[in-house]
Amino acid sequence: MRSPITDYLRDVVASCAEDDDESPLSVAVVTVEGTRYGAGDTEVTFPIQSISKALTYALALGDHGLDAVHDRIDVEPSGDAFNEISLEAETGRPRNAMINAGAIAAHSLVHGADTAERADRILALHSAFVGRELAVDESVVDDEMAGAHRNLALAHMLASVGVLACDPHEVVEGYARQCSIDVTSVDLAVLAATMANGGVHPDSGERVAPSAVMRQVLSTMTTCGMYDGTGDWIATVGIPAKSGVSGAVIGVLPGQLGIAVHSPGLDDRGNSIRGVRVFERLSRDMDLHMMDIAPSGHSAVRATRTDGAGTTYELQGDIRFVGAENIMSRVLDDSTDGGDPVTFDLEPARAINGAAIRLLTELIDRLRGDGRDVHVEDPNGLMDHRSADAG
Amino acid sequence: MRSPITDYLRDVVASCAEDDDESPLSVAVVTVEGTRYGAGDTEVTFPIQSISKALTYALALGDHGLDAVHDRIDVEPSGDAFNEISLEAETGRPRNAMINAGAIAAHSLVHGADTAERADRILALHSAFVGRELAVDESVVDDEMAGAHRNLALAHMLASVGVLACDPHEVVEGYARQCSIDVTSVDLAVLAATMANGGVHPDSGERVAPSAVMRQVLSTMTTCGMYDGTGDWIATVGIPAKSGVSGAVIGVLPGQLGIAVHSPGLDDRGNSIRGVRVFERLSRDMDLHMMDIAPSGHSAVRATRTDGAGTTYELQGDIRFVGAENIMSRVLDDSTDGGDPVTFDLEPARAINGAAIRLLTELIDRLRGDGRDVHVEDPNGLMDHRSADAG
Amino acid sequence: MRSPITDYLRDVVASCAEDDDESPLSVAVVTVEGTRYGAGDTEVTFPIQSISKALTYALALGDHGLDAVHDRIDVEPSGDAFNEISLEAETGRPRNAMINAGAIAAHSLVHGADTAERADRILALHSAFVGRELAVDESVVDDEMAGAHRNLALAHMLASVGVLACDPHEVVEGYARQCSIDVTSVDLAVLAATMANGGVHPDSGERVAPSAVMRQVLSTMTTCGMYDGTGDWIATVGIPAKSGVSGAVIGVLPGQLGIAVHSPGLDDRGNSIRGVRVFERLSRDMDLHMMDIAPSGHSAVRATRTDGAGTTYELQGDIRFVGAENIMSRVLDDSTDGGDPVTFDLEPARAINGAAIRLLTELIDRLRGDGRDVHVEDPNGLMDHRSADAG
Amino acid sequence: MRSPITDYLRDVVASCAEDDDESPLSVAVVTVEGTRYGAGDTEVTFPIQSISKALTYALALGDHGLDAVHDRIDVEPSGDAFNEISLEAETGRPRNAMINAGAIAAHSLVHGADTAERADRILALHSAFVGRELAVDESVVDDEMAGAHRNLALAHMLASVGVLACDPHEVVEGYARQCSIDVTSVDLAVLAATMANGGVHPDSGERVAPSAVMRQVLSTMTTCGMYDGTGDWIATVGIPAKSGVSGAVIGVLPGQLGIAVHSPGLDDRGNSIRGVRVFERLSRDMDLHMMDIAPSGHSAVRATRTDGAGTTYELQGDIRFVGAENIMSRVLDDSTDGGDPVTFDLEPARAINGAAIRLLTELIDRLRGDGRDVHVEDPNGLMDHRSADAG
Repeated sequence: MRSPITDYLRDVVASCAEDDDESPLSVAVVTVEGTRYGAGDTEVTFPIQSISKALTYALALGDHGLDAVHDRIDVEPSGDAFNEISLEAETGRPRNAMINAGAIAAHSLVHGADTAERADRILALHSAFVGRELAVDESVVDDEMAGAHRNLALAHMLASVGVLACDPHEVVEGYARQCSIDVTSVDLAVLAATMANGGVHPDSGERVAPSAVMRQVLSTMTTCGMYDGTGDWIATVGIPAKSGVSGAVIGVLPGQLGIAVHSPGLDDRGNSIRGVRVFERLSRDMDLHMMDIAPSGHSAVRATRTDGAGTTYELQGDIRFVGAENIMSRVLDDSTDGGDPVTFDLEPARAINGAAIRLLTELIDRLRGDGRDVHVEDPNGLMDHRSADAG
Repeated sequence: MRSPITDYLRDVVASCAEDDDESPLSVAVVTVEGTRYGAGDTEVTFPIQSISKALTYALALGDHGLDAVHDRIDVEPSGDAFNEISLEAETGRPRNAMINAGAIAAHSLVHGADTAERADRILALHSAFVGRELAVDESVVDDEMAGAHRNLALAHMLASVGVLACDPHEVVEGYARQCSIDVTSVDLAVLAATMANGGVHPDSGERVAPSAVMRQVLSTMTTCGMYDGTGDWIATVGIPAKSGVSGAVIGVLPGQLGIAVHSPGLDDRGNSIRGVRVFERLSRDMDLHMMDIAPSGHSAVRATRTDGAGTTYELQGDIRFVGAENIMSRVLDDSTDGGDPVTFDLEPARAINGAAIRLLTELIDRLRGDGRDVHVEDPNGLMDHRSADAG
Repeated sequence: MRSPITDYLRDVVASCAEDDDESPLSVAVVTVEGTRYGAGDTEVTFPIQSISKALTYALALGDHGLDAVHDRIDVEPSGDAFNEISLEAETGRPRNAMINAGAIAAHSLVHGADTAERADRILALHSAFVGRELAVDESVVDDEMAGAHRNLALAHMLASVGVLACDPHEVVEGYARQCSIDVTSVDLAVLAATMANGGVHPDSGERVAPSAVMRQVLSTMTTCGMYDGTGDWIATVGIPAKSGVSGAVIGVLPGQLGIAVHSPGLDDRGNSIRGVRVFERLSRDMDLHMMDIAPSGHSAVRATRTDGAGTTYELQGDIRFVGAENIMSRVLDDSTDGGDPVTFDLEPARAINGAAIRLLTELIDRLRGDGRDVHVEDPNGLMDHRSADAG
Repeated sequence: MRSPITDYLRDVVASCAEDDDESPLSVAVVTVEGTRYGAGDTEVTFPIQSISKALTYALALGDHGLDAVHDRIDVEPSGDAFNEISLEAETGRPRNAMINAGAIAAHSLVHGADTAERADRILALHSAFVGRELAVDESVVDDEMAGAHRNLALAHMLASVGVLACDPHEVVEGYARQCSIDVTSVDLAVLAATMANGGVHPDSGERVAPSAVMRQVLSTMTTCGMYDGTGDWIATVGIPAKSGVSGAVIGVLPGQLGIAVHSPGLDDRGNSIRGVRVFERLSRDMDLHMMDIAPSGHSAVRATRTDGAGTTYELQGDIRFVGAENIMSRVLDDSTDGGDPVTFDLEPARAINGAAIRLLTELIDRLRGDGRDVHVEDPNGLMDHRSADAG
């Protein structure tokens, strides 16, 4: 039996392709568990172009740390069109790493003895995120270099204000290489799913980028990823995203899935016309908007049982700050009558993050301080600190 | 026993107040279930100022619909300082509703026979979000009007490009009234919690704004809420927010909680210095960053049992698109051996949204089309369409 | 016999009116001696509009002095379109007095107890420059006020940065009055001729504005008078000018003549389409470009005679710095043989300005210091200091 | 006997050097007749820097014509600081040839097979204007190239919008060479005097640039020569000028003289601090402001004699449009009594330009048409058309 999701995507592709545009259109969705869905011309390859800005920024952040990179590249939306220069007036810092000036600065920050080594490390990171050996399309590199005046201008401008970490021509050549990495929409959806999974590849479970770096990259995509259409995109689609001039758009729903759409025609903001259309459709049909608020009233406490052995709280779901607050709130409400033992049953829960562990540990300490007898049933070791830190 | 959260907040207030600033400092946190925590000078009242932009925008959106308002007010970050004019070059549209020009345009769009009626409706909506009768501080109104040249300039400018829906002086007077609503930080945290709860008041369960409107408001706060420091804020704090010149900042974590901090000293972007500091501390300590990615591997399928009655899938948690995909994926994997009955046990689940209901319904139809016998155990009526649509 | 100049102007009007525009077209030229020439629809009256900016600025300069006005209004071209706001980023000062923001600021600086008095003084100055009692067209004032949102915006903006000297609504009403002064193109050409004559009316010989004020106004017209087309205008036409939205343009050739053209159709810079065309034609045909350089080789020394009475230098023309230098240079060349008496014959000269008087006086002192006998024949009293100072 | 002008300049240098700046200061004044005056460190040489923009623009204008160059380089002030990029939004055209972007574009337009030939032709034109063989300081070229990132950025930017006529690196190297021409302040004052003389060298009388080109260059210097301080400069000093980063400023008073000041310290607009001070002093003391208006009442008619031979008009001075108008006006006033012969005595006049010749010729034709007997006494051949056209 074919998945209804595949059928749904085919339907979306069919309806979004009902225009005069005869160029390819494909969409791919990959979950953080690695399940892949695709429809349309998913076999078509194309240069990754500006979507490479996300992982190059990630690499620079990993090489230098967030603060050092922030000294050279700001994280503010520019309010300008995609082809504006957008350097900060006083410092010359590029406004963010999702526009060309910032991406070129980020490329220059990637550790490497020379152009080739920087470009190789960037290609390797993309391969790791996708999970297969990607390659650079040399003919695209040549085309890029032939018309690279604008990027050379940006690179020299950055050099003139001391933001560039290496020779302008070398960085532009390297940047042309990173933009020429050959991908399919499925590749990009896997890449996006690895980002959605906090930098851990869904198939291998291998961590390919630190979670703090992923958080920074996704935050920047949220406020700056779709050029000067980002505000509109977040309002309408509500998924952190990045687009490229080859007509691809990736979307990352943290903890859930990665999406990629590819279709060449661009709007005047530099974003794929049909890419935007497909994402709007997916977001609306599948309730994927990140500000789409789940109804309240869900408790981290699945059930409360009081018997001779005291009160047992069955905990459920992914317990984070709000869940821990919810548990504490219940326990404190029940505590007026004092005295009897308390059991926290973590068996039905799925996960518990660091903040929640700290709060629950504090709660348990205080209950014990009040003379209460407290038991924790944690067969899956969720309260173990190391697993918490990895979260 | 006092909540560890209260103690934690007191600690945050104490450490963030270790400076020369002797003005008040308070923080309040309210969950989507209505639990309130506070620390510091929570009894201090102050004018709401620009934080009123969020709900005035909400009221305009409710009165006219998203598209009609979008024709008059864009949703893009301006890249400009908080006191820039920021009208779109071609159309004169304000760049977004979180800057003064856009807020004045939004105020003028609120339905009302006159200034008083518009201001009253805005006050009433704030009261509904907070859950108590708020009042306007008339002395603040007077002060605002005495120095209202800048807002009058913006209003006349908007009138000159046809964006304003009423008389410039009336709208500025009304805007001064909305900015002079007297609140405490706890009021603002409840207001934020109502936003976090999708427009449903945590205490009363009453819907005070449509969920689509809340989504639009929160999206705009995400990309534009902290003036030209929004990108930095989203990267560092990761919570949709809005600040005001009286030194208050609200943060909204959808589906989780509302936060408010108040302390008068402002940085050069117009945001509360200690407000930013407290939020950074809360986000880091409590893992509240919205791009903080939960580890993967959580299943919507709690357990699978196969016995003489066929295979039973126990479903758990909040089931949305990704959860439904997860369930389908499992069922399709198991289906190779065909034939035997399938039971979906929704008893352990907490909620299931519209997209997930549609996918599961499609899955069930296909299984039945394949001749399978399918049972759904749904004692809480989660698959009922009306409850889904309300989500 | 009709003047060939009148015939020439009729020919220019005829050829520049060969288009589909059926609106009036007129041109008037008035010399600094008061001779008037005109062609086309010279009887048509129209509101003076932005051309009133020049004399209102003059009045403010006269009332406060150049430095005090400079503190409130800069003198730099804005590089922006005519409808831009163009306030200096740091100070809020309008960029110059030829754009609306600066003109409104200048109006507010005119001394006067109230709106009426300020407007009356401005009207009176225009009447003095034209040489007849002008009047305000009240119906135009009403139209201006009905659509005054943009000017009200500018006035409130100026008030908010402390640049405005009175109430924003009063200044905008007064500004509407100054823009509604009813004139003909001949009126404007006389006004321009009075400016060309350094603030002295050509007919009456009455000084109606200080020469230092005129110099400042003409300088500002040179760099800012034609909005963001000023550079092109100076390159092509080469005459300090000011245009208005009613389709009039005045041009001032210092010491020579005033020109006015009127025809309503505007280009996208806000300047009269046919006005620009007529001025280009006049400048080219009549060699009026101020950078059109007279051939060198002209001497202030008309003839030198040496006889028994020593050497006599016959001086000619308007003697300024360069003329005085020329005389000294000759005398010093001739002085190698020392000794004999020197006579300066100023009878053939027309005028001699302050700088030249100072240099010649110094030369005479030195010659006498060298023991030479020096005579000055000055039947017209050109070397008299008071006449020099008036220059 | 030393010239009082030399003494005056020494006095200016002495008083303007009364500050803590120990760097060189020199001033030179050269008339259109070639007389040179200088004071201060006139033997100091320095690279010409941005002052070379004027003649490079002249060379490009000569090579391509005004219109073709205008298609690539606008003539509008930018309103921006000297280090802004200032390209026109829609076309990418540099705003004017006096800022770096425009100067680089102008350099690229100079005809030449390669970098060396372009640079040689520019050097040759500078040598021709100065009247001696200038040379490039190769050590300065090296320094310029070492820090040329900003110019390389501009050149690549221009190439990206199609404005550049050759390779970006070649043009920047060539531009570095033109900026490194070694000069003294006397050289620059002679260069300026040649410009003041309409492109004819004062010493040799040789035409080294067309007069139409000079007019365009001087117009651009008038509106754009002193970066974003040009408006202030024209208001205060009133002399078309160009400044350079080595601390030199040239001023050109058409038909009169060239001035150059050199002193290294720059203000925040990029203009020489003491250079501005000296020019302000010279303009004020010597009445050099170009909007300084000569008093009216000067007639081109020196005297009128009526005797048996009819009426004789003795013409004087430089006769241009206004002079010819003055003559006609007199003749027409006198003509009411008709009939008797008219004689125009041009002997006392100095020059008469094309427009005036055309008007007088027309007047003579009309008088003859009316049956009057007209004589022209023109012993110096001033009415000869060829000499008029050369004017």
